[in-house]
Amino acid sequence: MQLVARKLDLDANAHIAVLNRKDASRIGLVPGSRVEIAHNGKRLIAIVDFSKSYIKQGEVGLFADTWEALGLDDGKEIDISPMPDPESTFYIRKKLDGKRLTDEEIHAIIMDIVENRLTSAEAAAFISAAYIHGFNAEETVALTNAIVASGESVVIEKEPVVDKHCIGGIPNNRTTMLVVPILTSLGFYMPKLSSRAITSPAGTADTMEVLAPVDLDAETVKEITETVGGVMAWGGGTRIAAADDKLIAIRRPLSLDPRGMLLASILAKKKAVSSQYVLIDIPVGPEAKIPTVRKGEELAEQFIDIGTRLGMHMKAVLTDGSAPIGRGVGPVLEARDVLEILSGSGPQDLRKKGAELAAHLISFVKGTPFEEALRIADGQISSGAALRKFKEIVEAQGGDPDVKPEDLKPGKYSETIFADRDGMVYHISNHAVARLARAAGAPFQKGAGLYLHVRVGDRVKKGDPLYTLYSESERLLKDALEQVDDVVRIE
Amino acid sequence: MQLVARKLDLDANAHIAVLNRKDASRIGLVPGSRVEIAHNGKRLIAIVDFSKSYIKQGEVGLFADTWEALGLDDGKEIDISPMPDPESTFYIRKKLDGKRLTDEEIHAIIMDIVENRLTSAEAAAFISAAYIHGFNAEETVALTNAIVASGESVVIEKEPVVDKHCIGGIPNNRTTMLVVPILTSLGFYMPKLSSRAITSPAGTADTMEVLAPVDLDAETVKEITETVGGVMAWGGGTRIAAADDKLIAIRRPLSLDPRGMLLASILAKKKAVSSQYVLIDIPVGPEAKIPTVRKGEELAEQFIDIGTRLGMHMKAVLTDGSAPIGRGVGPVLEARDVLEILSGSGPQDLRKKGAELAAHLISFVKGTPFEEALRIADGQISSGAALRKFKEIVEAQGGDPDVKPEDLKPGKYSETIFADRDGMVYHISNHAVARLARAAGAPFQKGAGLYLHVRVGDRVKKGDPLYTLYSESERLLKDALEQVDDVVRIE
Repeated sequence: MQLVARKLDLDANAHIAVLNRKDASRIGLVPGSRVEIAHNGKRLIAIVDFSKSYIKQGEVGLFADTWEALGLDDGKEIDISPMPDPESTFYIRKKLDGKRLTDEEIHAIIMDIVENRLTSAEAAAFISAAYIHGFNAEETVALTNAIVASGESVVIEKEPVVDKHCIGGIPNNRTTMLVVPILTSLGFYMPKLSSRAITSPAGTADTMEVLAPVDLDAETVKEITETVGGVMAWGGGTRIAAADDKLIAIRRPLSLDPRGMLLASILAKKKAVSSQYVLIDIPVGPEAKIPTVRKGEELAEQFIDIGTRLGMHMKAVLTDGSAPIGRGVGPVLEARDVLEILSGSGPQDLRKKGAELAAHLISFVKGTPFEEALRIADGQISSGAALRKFKEIVEAQGGDPDVKPEDLKPGKYSETIFADRDGMVYHISNHAVARLARAAGAPFQKGAGLYLHVRVGDRVKKGDPLYTLYSESERLLKDALEQVDDVVRIE
Repeated sequence: MQLVARKLDLDANAHIAVLNRKDASRIGLVPGSRVEIAHNGKRLIAIVDFSKSYIKQGEVGLFADTWEALGLDDGKEIDISPMPDPESTFYIRKKLDGKRLTDEEIHAIIMDIVENRLTSAEAAAFISAAYIHGFNAEETVALTNAIVASGESVVIEKEPVVDKHCIGGIPNNRTTMLVVPILTSLGFYMPKLSSRAITSPAGTADTMEVLAPVDLDAETVKEITETVGGVMAWGGGTRIAAADDKLIAIRRPLSLDPRGMLLASILAKKKAVSSQYVLIDIPVGPEAKIPTVRKGEELAEQFIDIGTRLGMHMKAVLTDGSAPIGRGVGPVLEARDVLEILSGSGPQDLRKKGAELAAHLISFVKGTPFEEALRIADGQISSGAALRKFKEIVEAQGGDPDVKPEDLKPGKYSETIFADRDGMVYHISNHAVARLARAAGAPFQKGAGLYLHVRVGDRVKKGDPLYTLYSESERLLKDALEQVDDVVRIE
């Protein structure tokens, strides 16, 4: 069909052609159909969207990227024809039918997702099929390799390259920002990619961003790692394991975490940065992502199996996920906890967990007995070596290395909640803490969140402060205060 | 988050807000996330799309419908906040987990699909889950009722209202255009909604459109049915059973036809137009949609079960689906076959099938013995009564009632294929015929398609014409000729 091209002042991650609804349905297209557009000897595949009236019959609106890719001028006639579905749709169909996919089939699906040749509906069908039917170990390995191949990789020409990953779900628990300086100050290399918060009040990337830019490219990740020893970047800002962000974007709305896909997603980011030794932290608790030790052990085994098949040395530890770790919750407050710990004070539970995870890696890589490794790790904090390395990393990423904990100011609106009776702190709810910190504006407002004055096991008297809520907006603070409930249980 | 609003010259079937990619990921949004937009005391829910650079940080682009719904002026600041997922996402999740859905849950999903509160990815997850886990009879009935409730209904205040539906897959087979005039000329009422071709060379709506407009609204469908007796409209042009078109649009790209959903889709369109008696035509053959008699009987039972639960009188017949029925394939050529039959000539196989289906309905509604009903039905053709009624319907829909078969001209470019040996026509391939007619431009070019000079069982000599291919474009005819293969097998 010949249509007159109109440029639309919009861009997207995909080639989009907007047709008048009548034209489109007349040639059998539905929103999401693929068409081939030909002009000037150039051909490309675009996804169709509908317009009721802005795009008139006989016209086609093209997003800016598409317009430029075709080298168009306004008012030119172009040829649009319906395209057959890419082969990967047959493989998605195969998975829907409960069959195993080959390496090549998985690779084709992932590449078509990255190159925007599949619609979000098709990608969602793939995720749904994976969720219901699952992936076996071979498929999971193929999926990981395909995700790695989908983006850039970082080859670190130093050794040993170590990495850690936490399954998440525990407020604060900002151990990465301790493990990286401890280990890199000991000569290990850590090109650490972290995520931003999706449903939590802060991700490591959000917290590190309080101190330095985290939106680094792959080249910078490599350079800082090889010169300084470590880096803490936002994984989503690089093109490393590019398919992963697309898969996350599809999985998130329905909270679908097909088991094999979760493993592949995490391990692809490790493999793509040359990790040799990987430690997985699996917090277990009734309000953690993994509710029981048995499920934690099952997940640990799967990580070790798949990671080993991918050529990495894997270790997994189950940790206490029953309550928040650290005192601050929200980017600024968590960054302050970390800086305080590295400066010799701060919350001791978080310091202890950070040192332990570092010790697991030392012991794993060097064969050092764990108790000795723990003394070494904690010694790097006590001696100030970890803080010096942390400042080097902050500076290398473009932040201010001389920032002090007291420079980190939480939101200017605050309200403290007090104990309404005498007793012992019996429970602090991960879910309620996270919900409250988000209601106050975290992670979008860096200074929003809360600070816990008490820990589980503390004795309190009526009128003692339990926690202080911070926000950068009076309205959000007020909204959050209405939700104060069940955060700290005193018995 | 406060953003400056910019109007985009685009519209869609949904409220769309385009954010700069950086703003969006900073507040945890992904493409497809839902946000609440507030302005001037008005609030609405929009789906987020990303822009790399056209929408700057701090701005939000809004599609025209959204802009008007909010009563905005350019440059106004509006408040955008992430929205929780609608409850129906939990029900979709429940179906993914293999559980049965209640009537209320199915209703909520269908309403959210129609109101664009679900993203296409979420809707695709629902279809995928339905495909894998299936629907039981109660769920199928609930789904049908929800689809009916999702759009307009037509209450025909006359009796009896009859309907027919063919599962499809057989080229030409344009029986609806015979059954409707036969039965309405006998005093039955048929508010027939048909579809356009999706993967075939012509749908009934495409073929009828050669003779009269088919894009009618519900009110017109009612009015013509009650005055003339019958109508042949395009189902997708009405708002009747509105959810169905949305479901089809999601199912089509992956060719997913969850069994319960197929039944619900078809039966909803019957129920929504007050059908009392419904005949289902299930062609069976190796190249039909239903390959074996056993599968055909299974489907027939399901139609009867679900239709009966919905309060309709159901009958299903298995018919011969081994080869095309009629001579012409493509909108103009099929319309010509129909006009010829009603005028007393034309392909006898199609006339016979049309009369038989009409007879099944007469016999079903009136209790007339089938042989007698068949004489009555065919008599309406012989007497010219069916043609007179057909012309009334064409005129009522806005077409020219005096059109003659010879006025219907196929594409001006044509090429005839001849037998390369003596023998008997052993097989005519449904698939090859459909593929070839589409390659020549059908259904988008009304005159494209092919005309079969032979039928299965005919004796041919080398050099006899087998079929003529027509197109309105020289290039498409050439392309199609390259695909000529296996259409007619002579042995």
